[in-house]
Amino acid sequence: MTDLAAILAANARLEGHVRRTPLLESPFLNDIAGRRVLVKPECLQHTGSFKFRGAWSAISALPEEQRAKGVLAYSSGNHAQGIAYAARAHGIPAVIIMPDNAPTLKLENTRALGAEVVTYDRAGGESREAIGAAIAIERGLTLIRPYDEPMVIAGQGTTGLEIAAQATEMGIITAEVLVCCGGGGLTSGIALALEGKAPDMTVRPVEPQGFDDVARSLRAGTIQSNPSEVGLCDAILTKQPGEITFPIMHRLCGAGIAVSDIETLDAMAQAFLRLKIVAEPGGAVALAAALYHGDELDADTVIAVVSGGNVDPVVFGRALARMG
Amino acid sequence: MTDLAAILAANARLEGHVRRTPLLESPFLNDIAGRRVLVKPECLQHTGSFKFRGAWSAISALPEEQRAKGVLAYSSGNHAQGIAYAARAHGIPAVIIMPDNAPTLKLENTRALGAEVVTYDRAGGESREAIGAAIAIERGLTLIRPYDEPMVIAGQGTTGLEIAAQATEMGIITAEVLVCCGGGGLTSGIALALEGKAPDMTVRPVEPQGFDDVARSLRAGTIQSNPSEVGLCDAILTKQPGEITFPIMHRLCGAGIAVSDIETLDAMAQAFLRLKIVAEPGGAVALAAALYHGDELDADTVIAVVSGGNVDPVVFGRALARMG
Repeated sequence: MTDLAAILAANARLEGHVRRTPLLESPFLNDIAGRRVLVKPECLQHTGSFKFRGAWSAISALPEEQRAKGVLAYSSGNHAQGIAYAARAHGIPAVIIMPDNAPTLKLENTRALGAEVVTYDRAGGESREAIGAAIAIERGLTLIRPYDEPMVIAGQGTTGLEIAAQATEMGIITAEVLVCCGGGGLTSGIALALEGKAPDMTVRPVEPQGFDDVARSLRAGTIQSNPSEVGLCDAILTKQPGEITFPIMHRLCGAGIAVSDIETLDAMAQAFLRLKIVAEPGGAVALAAALYHGDELDADTVIAVVSGGNVDPVVFGRALARMG
Repeated sequence: MTDLAAILAANARLEGHVRRTPLLESPFLNDIAGRRVLVKPECLQHTGSFKFRGAWSAISALPEEQRAKGVLAYSSGNHAQGIAYAARAHGIPAVIIMPDNAPTLKLENTRALGAEVVTYDRAGGESREAIGAAIAIERGLTLIRPYDEPMVIAGQGTTGLEIAAQATEMGIITAEVLVCCGGGGLTSGIALALEGKAPDMTVRPVEPQGFDDVARSLRAGTIQSNPSEVGLCDAILTKQPGEITFPIMHRLCGAGIAVSDIETLDAMAQAFLRLKIVAEPGGAVALAAALYHGDELDADTVIAVVSGGNVDPVVFGRALARMG
């Protein structure tokens, strides 16, 4: 089951391993937004994104014999690094299936974290699923999906438990919680956690314009998809919400918000200037919504999750250049 | 008195106001250093540097009637922002004396934080001390010195209390604690805190090459000064250690370490790439020592304080460019 109990159990397994990220605030950001803006910087999490939470949750939940054989993931990005790091910490093998044209840095980072990287010819039409399935069967590896996976959602939901506890300690009961949204693992996990622990908070999924499958799916009531998966905000350009994540988001989330690439770069610049954190484009869309889409927000306090910071220096330079 | 009791008292006054910064770690940084490297990111502190701690400590320690009249500080940088922010939070006036050729952004930021900025003609030889003294007497303001001030040192020392508690929780008893060092307020405060709370840890002051007044003073046993106060690491280019801070550092610190500007820029790049934090040059020298001066270090674990993140985007771009 994907519910509060699963999130609490994941939280117990993460204790002593996850980094409990703070809530940051800047009077300058509050001025821009015209309301109070708190930021949950998951870019400071192990491997630079919230994905470590779900990876640890899923791996630590496996029966010991099954876990010992190892895990497998498809990813060219943050999920791969989260799985590699969590697998190494558990002392088990990890195989990551990545396209052979993935950026060299991502291939190297994933290998440096101790994973075995198996590349496939994306352009030539090789199926990563077929390759992965063959390896998994041959070696007895367990596939860990990036978002449509109950134990992964439970792990991401621990972000929501921390938000609820930290906000409550600050005396904040009502807020809109803006979450960078790809397949919906983080969004649905946080929504479930807040349903139980901070019921007066509403999750608002945030996506890039042109890739707002979740916003459109929420409006339509059925799963809608994006025409493309290539753009600035690479970490969250998933084709469509998951079969498990969508019903949760549909039940619990407010309307989605779509932000422009310019707003996203400006949010990255503001995070640099005022919070001293590094946000990747896909990790900055929620902050962009907080700063530049105030007319779509209701609450006096918004909490924006900065979901990751794994950004190429050249792309980061584009954000810095926006400051003139 | 500037001692552990003063630091503990400052810590109590800071409770609920200071941001308790985490200890960060990356396997990639450990690999570069050849030992375990923990990073205390005070760039994530309010106003982007540890200076908030000392400012809050000093203002909150004033008798209420005296405090109500307001405070005054000389600074073109992090101390000014810390004082302005802490004064506003206390609801009292703050006057900051800044050179009229200070960067526009710093002038604007200090004003935006609610302080009154009084500029003086640095090139024309006006004395900021004379201007400040006249204003202070006229308005009954209390001068808060940036480092040679017991309550400021006590506030900076709270960083050391957190390091001791966080490291102990991780099972770390012995370590070298590398501290970015200007006038010595942060360095002496941390050294006093660790003397009481983690006596097997040794503080090592870190400075830029050519500005290593503290390292030379420690070797000579008497206060030495720098020929210049202009360079990349602007936040820590103080002319010489303080009359109060130097004897503390001389009694408690290990040898100083001096790093090059190139090493500093590379450390800023590594902090961006592996920790997702923004370090300013003066805030990155301790990390540079951890990564690139291993032959001057003894301990298996080093804890590097990243003391601030208030860096111009153009200077930060120079660090990013080092990554090729």
